[in-house]
Amino acid sequence: MARFLKKKHAPAGNIPGEPVFVGEKKTDVTEMHVIDYDAEHVGESRPGTVDALFKYRKTDSVTWININGVHDTERIRAVAEGFGMHALITEDIVNTDQRPKMEEYDDHLFFVAKMITYDTEAKRIHAEQLSMVLGHNFLITFQERPGDVFETVRERIRRKKGRIRECGADYLAYVLMDTVIDNYLFLMEHLGEQIEDLEELLLGNPDRNTLGAINDFKHEMNYLRKSIRPAKEFILHLSRLDSDLIQTKTRPFLKDLLDIATQALEAVDTYRTMLNDHLEIYNSNISNRLNEIMKVLTIFSAIFIPLTFIAGIYGANFVHMPELNWPYAYPVFWGVLITVALVMLRFFKRKNWL
Amino acid sequence: MARFLKKKHAPAGNIPGEPVFVGEKKTDVTEMHVIDYDAEHVGESRPGTVDALFKYRKTDSVTWININGVHDTERIRAVAEGFGMHALITEDIVNTDQRPKMEEYDDHLFFVAKMITYDTEAKRIHAEQLSMVLGHNFLITFQERPGDVFETVRERIRRKKGRIRECGADYLAYVLMDTVIDNYLFLMEHLGEQIEDLEELLLGNPDRNTLGAINDFKHEMNYLRKSIRPAKEFILHLSRLDSDLIQTKTRPFLKDLLDIATQALEAVDTYRTMLNDHLEIYNSNISNRLNEIMKVLTIFSAIFIPLTFIAGIYGANFVHMPELNWPYAYPVFWGVLITVALVMLRFFKRKNWL
Amino acid sequence: MARFLKKKHAPAGNIPGEPVFVGEKKTDVTEMHVIDYDAEHVGESRPGTVDALFKYRKTDSVTWININGVHDTERIRAVAEGFGMHALITEDIVNTDQRPKMEEYDDHLFFVAKMITYDTEAKRIHAEQLSMVLGHNFLITFQERPGDVFETVRERIRRKKGRIRECGADYLAYVLMDTVIDNYLFLMEHLGEQIEDLEELLLGNPDRNTLGAINDFKHEMNYLRKSIRPAKEFILHLSRLDSDLIQTKTRPFLKDLLDIATQALEAVDTYRTMLNDHLEIYNSNISNRLNEIMKVLTIFSAIFIPLTFIAGIYGANFVHMPELNWPYAYPVFWGVLITVALVMLRFFKRKNWL
Amino acid sequence: MARFLKKKHAPAGNIPGEPVFVGEKKTDVTEMHVIDYDAEHVGESRPGTVDALFKYRKTDSVTWININGVHDTERIRAVAEGFGMHALITEDIVNTDQRPKMEEYDDHLFFVAKMITYDTEAKRIHAEQLSMVLGHNFLITFQERPGDVFETVRERIRRKKGRIRECGADYLAYVLMDTVIDNYLFLMEHLGEQIEDLEELLLGNPDRNTLGAINDFKHEMNYLRKSIRPAKEFILHLSRLDSDLIQTKTRPFLKDLLDIATQALEAVDTYRTMLNDHLEIYNSNISNRLNEIMKVLTIFSAIFIPLTFIAGIYGANFVHMPELNWPYAYPVFWGVLITVALVMLRFFKRKNWL
Amino acid sequence: MARFLKKKHAPAGNIPGEPVFVGEKKTDVTEMHVIDYDAEHVGESRPGTVDALFKYRKTDSVTWININGVHDTERIRAVAEGFGMHALITEDIVNTDQRPKMEEYDDHLFFVAKMITYDTEAKRIHAEQLSMVLGHNFLITFQERPGDVFETVRERIRRKKGRIRECGADYLAYVLMDTVIDNYLFLMEHLGEQIEDLEELLLGNPDRNTLGAINDFKHEMNYLRKSIRPAKEFILHLSRLDSDLIQTKTRPFLKDLLDIATQALEAVDTYRTMLNDHLEIYNSNISNRLNEIMKVLTIFSAIFIPLTFIAGIYGANFVHMPELNWPYAYPVFWGVLITVALVMLRFFKRKNWL
Repeated sequence: MARFLKKKHAPAGNIPGEPVFVGEKKTDVTEMHVIDYDAEHVGESRPGTVDALFKYRKTDSVTWININGVHDTERIRAVAEGFGMHALITEDIVNTDQRPKMEEYDDHLFFVAKMITYDTEAKRIHAEQLSMVLGHNFLITFQERPGDVFETVRERIRRKKGRIRECGADYLAYVLMDTVIDNYLFLMEHLGEQIEDLEELLLGNPDRNTLGAINDFKHEMNYLRKSIRPAKEFILHLSRLDSDLIQTKTRPFLKDLLDIATQALEAVDTYRTMLNDHLEIYNSNISNRLNEIMKVLTIFSAIFIPLTFIAGIYGANFVHMPELNWPYAYPVFWGVLITVALVMLRFFKRKNWL
Repeated sequence: MARFLKKKHAPAGNIPGEPVFVGEKKTDVTEMHVIDYDAEHVGESRPGTVDALFKYRKTDSVTWININGVHDTERIRAVAEGFGMHALITEDIVNTDQRPKMEEYDDHLFFVAKMITYDTEAKRIHAEQLSMVLGHNFLITFQERPGDVFETVRERIRRKKGRIRECGADYLAYVLMDTVIDNYLFLMEHLGEQIEDLEELLLGNPDRNTLGAINDFKHEMNYLRKSIRPAKEFILHLSRLDSDLIQTKTRPFLKDLLDIATQALEAVDTYRTMLNDHLEIYNSNISNRLNEIMKVLTIFSAIFIPLTFIAGIYGANFVHMPELNWPYAYPVFWGVLITVALVMLRFFKRKNWL
Repeated sequence: MARFLKKKHAPAGNIPGEPVFVGEKKTDVTEMHVIDYDAEHVGESRPGTVDALFKYRKTDSVTWININGVHDTERIRAVAEGFGMHALITEDIVNTDQRPKMEEYDDHLFFVAKMITYDTEAKRIHAEQLSMVLGHNFLITFQERPGDVFETVRERIRRKKGRIRECGADYLAYVLMDTVIDNYLFLMEHLGEQIEDLEELLLGNPDRNTLGAINDFKHEMNYLRKSIRPAKEFILHLSRLDSDLIQTKTRPFLKDLLDIATQALEAVDTYRTMLNDHLEIYNSNISNRLNEIMKVLTIFSAIFIPLTFIAGIYGANFVHMPELNWPYAYPVFWGVLITVALVMLRFFKRKNWL
Repeated sequence: MARFLKKKHAPAGNIPGEPVFVGEKKTDVTEMHVIDYDAEHVGESRPGTVDALFKYRKTDSVTWININGVHDTERIRAVAEGFGMHALITEDIVNTDQRPKMEEYDDHLFFVAKMITYDTEAKRIHAEQLSMVLGHNFLITFQERPGDVFETVRERIRRKKGRIRECGADYLAYVLMDTVIDNYLFLMEHLGEQIEDLEELLLGNPDRNTLGAINDFKHEMNYLRKSIRPAKEFILHLSRLDSDLIQTKTRPFLKDLLDIATQALEAVDTYRTMLNDHLEIYNSNISNRLNEIMKVLTIFSAIFIPLTFIAGIYGANFVHMPELNWPYAYPVFWGVLITVALVMLRFFKRKNWL
Repeated sequence: MARFLKKKHAPAGNIPGEPVFVGEKKTDVTEMHVIDYDAEHVGESRPGTVDALFKYRKTDSVTWININGVHDTERIRAVAEGFGMHALITEDIVNTDQRPKMEEYDDHLFFVAKMITYDTEAKRIHAEQLSMVLGHNFLITFQERPGDVFETVRERIRRKKGRIRECGADYLAYVLMDTVIDNYLFLMEHLGEQIEDLEELLLGNPDRNTLGAINDFKHEMNYLRKSIRPAKEFILHLSRLDSDLIQTKTRPFLKDLLDIATQALEAVDTYRTMLNDHLEIYNSNISNRLNEIMKVLTIFSAIFIPLTFIAGIYGANFVHMPELNWPYAYPVFWGVLITVALVMLRFFKRKNWL
């Protein structure tokens, strides 16, 4: 299956702004979770209907609405319209094959990012699309399935750890993106160790599996790069954005986030370069081993083929072969054979093949 | 035949602004089709003469004139002049080897794009040139032959699906371009699956056909890239264009189109990288297999050539060869042969060749 | 001889602004040809002296002075001074190893371009330097030798075809450059067909000549690129130039010229990429064939070397070899030989080598 | 262990602005050292508490506070807060896996650089993070462990060598960065000599160790590049920075520093190119040697295999083999053998294999 | 010895602005030579002391002071201070491992360039640093050793050839740089011819020396590029510089110089590409030849090994071998051998190996 482009149901001609779910359906139900907080209070709820969300539109407290499951396009559209989003946002949320990006609208910012998990058995990275809409005092996040890496963030809000409770929805958005990017670094560190370990294999006794492993890592790095590069681009854009949705005190954090994204991108590129180097070393080593194999063949052949020839001569049945009757012919024959063999060995020693 | 540059009839010295048809003639007659619509009404017609088109020049309703077949340069020129286009536009429409591009004129915008179809038998992509002229309340499209992917768009206009009937000619132009680019993605997804599937072959038992397949895909990807890259460039330019031919409410759609074009371009580049990786893996694997072949040869040779030599010695006809008369000579002879063979096998086992 | 840099007579230390002819002398005499035209009249002459040219300096009609042969530095300098050109222009005209470029001076624009011809026998591209000076109502062109691709342009002027007689010297300059660039495309189309045809050879039975052909095409493409890339750059610059020497109505034509130059440059790059791919395919194919050769060798060796060994054993002359006297020894011997051969064949069939 | 990305203790979800030590703990105690100087006086001290540092905040003399050991996050945070730094600075100081960078804050500039040392036994470069905070009349430096290359700078301050005592904290920061970058050049010169020396090995008799050495140098160069490229970038930015923390008279020195950083970066790139060339030469040479090995094998085989065959024929035991009884059969037999051998030798001589 | 980075005496910690001679000492004495000229007069002198130079500081005539030998840092510093140069200029002059660059100071411009000479025996390019300080009406040049390519310039000044005597010190600086860059072109032309000649060798019978030659040329081209690229950059900068040290009438000459530098850089890149192509052709050819060698081996083996086997069978000593007694056994035997050989030959002919 084409992992680098997701299967769409219709080839072309979708109506623009008409949301069509694209991707694998990863959860059956759509779950909604709300945390509403300010410096003093925190409240959590799991509303069953979309309408229950709308009361958070104009509060002074910060509201984080998280929605798991985006295949229910009707519900997503209802949320989107209730919060005054452009029709294209809905379309982007449900089409889970978007590139990471940021879009500015009058009243809100829209982000798409990719959350990464690593399936250690299949040795494959899986990506899940995270869409975020940042408005005045609210942040709505859309995930493809339940379960995420944001539990620590929720705990921090509940327990008032760090400055999160004193800051606005923009800071919350930053914290979520920071968590996502940190996860990239964590994964890359994990893969990086394995890639660096491959190297010893390469200079030792590499086989076809080594080749397969290099190839697999290359794919995963290309896959990661596809998520990180546009993410870095939009973080750069965001850190320079002149919008009243981003408070001044959040800006240094965005710059810091940009540093981390840059580091992640550079790490991907470093590992890609390293894998290319690995492949070259692998190939050189294969050639080296071919040379060794051929040396063995050549040495055996060059020594024994002439000897066999000499032996063959004295197997001839000519009636008149004077040597055959000489009394010391046989020892002399052995002497010749050994001499030829020694000459050949010396020849190969001089050539540095032994 | 040079697929990457089309045959021109005259080498040089064409009169600029003098339209000369370049390409294969893909249809015999020139067909004209008109849809005229606004929020309330839709009308369709197939006028036989060019003059019948001119009444749509100044209407308030949106008019989409589609013309199939561009080899009749006289007729194309008549249309172009009737709608006040620059002589170079006519030339570009009939020369079907144009790069995708956008040009601004005072009263209209001119676009050239490539529509892609895939011939699954020849495993070849075919491109057809689509030229569009966007004026105030009209859009004229020129195609090389009848039959296109725009039927769904016509249906949407007829049945008033989506917002198309409420929007202007600029939105119609966007919808057509969106359909074209969506088609790229659909095709790439199709090719992408095949390219990703190639990989398993590569690590298994690749042959010359695999090499041919990699090469073919490389060509098709280069061919696609040639169409997509300039298209992305002009969409970028269009999305930032300050022209009263583009309404404000169409702009978010153009940005979305830019995203899709960017995704298409990135997909092409991902697959090109993947094909290069495939070729490297292929080559490494060929080297691997050469090593295996040579190991087999070397093992057989290194075991049997010495044995043959030993057998050869005792085929010699020397009169005085004491061993020949020994009663246990023959079993000892076999013992020596087997010992030598075992020593060789052990040698190769230690070298890890078995 | 260094084709990519022309031989200069003096290593260094030429006096700047002092014209020194650099290149091969390609004609013996310097020929001058003048066409003077406006919408109503055309006149042609072949003046013998430089002074006869000066009367065209301030006319209202458009004057095209063409000079073939630039080795006569004195005459070139006389023309240049008479028309008020900077000393460096003279130097650039006679030094025929200039890069394509445009230079702005107060009263005129100076262009250097390369005209390309293809020597089908030597399979080599030859370049000739074309220098143009565009002033108010005059255009002076300098070519290295007689004979050019501009005859159709002269005919168009004489017969009043197209708009050329209504336009100024800037349009004439455009037409000449258009002819030059069109010629590139024509040549590239010719080479492109051959390059695309090479591909079938590659997957079939390539030999050393194929390698030589790839190499030759690579050189010619590098050579072409050296002329086209700077030409595209200066056309871009020209199309944006704010100078009263370029009329407003000529600008769309310059943009069109830029499109053609871009197409030419992209075609060169496409073919360069294709040639690199060709070389990779060639190498992979060479490796493939080595594998096939080695399989043949290995199969023959692995089957017959053991057989020869067995035959060798029974050629031994031991007195006590019980098998030799068995009545069915010989048929059994053949049976063993055939069995061994069949086992080996099966082994290779399983390995997929047959 | 992943050398290109350091192990973090928590995968994701760290609280931003909450300093978490990342890296190996390289020293047990945190040491603080202060030099306070102006043109007339110098004073040094080793305060035991953080509070003792705060008196230097507003002096007119220049104060350089150096802190060795950054694992004691509490103490680092106390210093940072005492000098009014942003929380993110503390985080960056203790996370020793930062990219080199510069950050502007209202009252101070923050730099991160990498100090390089070369472990000649392990043939590995080790990097230590150097963080610097430049404020008005003070510079605070943070190092991972005791011992540094700045002793000469301290001596210069103590002995009033050069202009350092007349200049401000910005000049001191420049001197330290200059020392760090100079160290890069010194190391690169050391590695460069070894890389250039490798070349002779390559054209001689390279083996697997040569391959390993090329690979190792490639890694170290990639590692160096990772430190130098961002350092060059921030020095470029710094040299253009419009901040009152940088005095006008320091600017030429910063431009000079930029030159040195550029030179270091170019040297890294030159050596990387050279190593890639080395690898290519290595591979070509391996192929060359394979050819030589195969020539030896082919020559021996092609000469002796036919000879063995001829000898084999006359070993046949046919009853009716007339040649066997000819009186001169045996000498003729030898004549044939020698003739065949000579013909083969000539054949190979013509092919230029001998 | 590291040719790409020069040996410094101290690793790090040099005092900035403190000149330390870096490089090989190439002359024993420091020579000073002065030419002072205007349109009417020329005077030359060889002052023994630095003080004798200072009278030229404020004259109206143009003064060119040339100093050979920069190891005497005291003297260089004295000159520099006398002419009011920044301390960093002195440091750059005596450190002969500078990158080509230009620096603007209030009263003067400072240039560093590399003069190239080619040692035809060692096949190595040697570079000598040329530092120039351009002030009002004076130009001071510093060279590493006596003897240069500027003698023609001096002659032009003495004999009033060209416009040099009418122009200022800026024109003199241009002439010297022009001479330096022209020298690059001259050298490149020389190397280029050899590189283009290599090609014929490559398609013929390349050996290890060819590989060494490609490698050597690659190095020299990298070395040249290191000097030319930054030179082109600063000439570009200079040609756009807004400084009253550069007169308006000198600007067209600087643009011309930029053209030449661009041409030199493009030539270097063309030859680098060509050398990479050469290496690829070399490798392909090595593979081709391996194939040929293996074909010879395979053909000989595949023909004679089966024949030897057949001969071996009839050498067997079985008592009951009916064929042995057949009267026509021996001719039939020969018939079989020849048939087998012919079949094999035909097999190889079909495979196109013969």
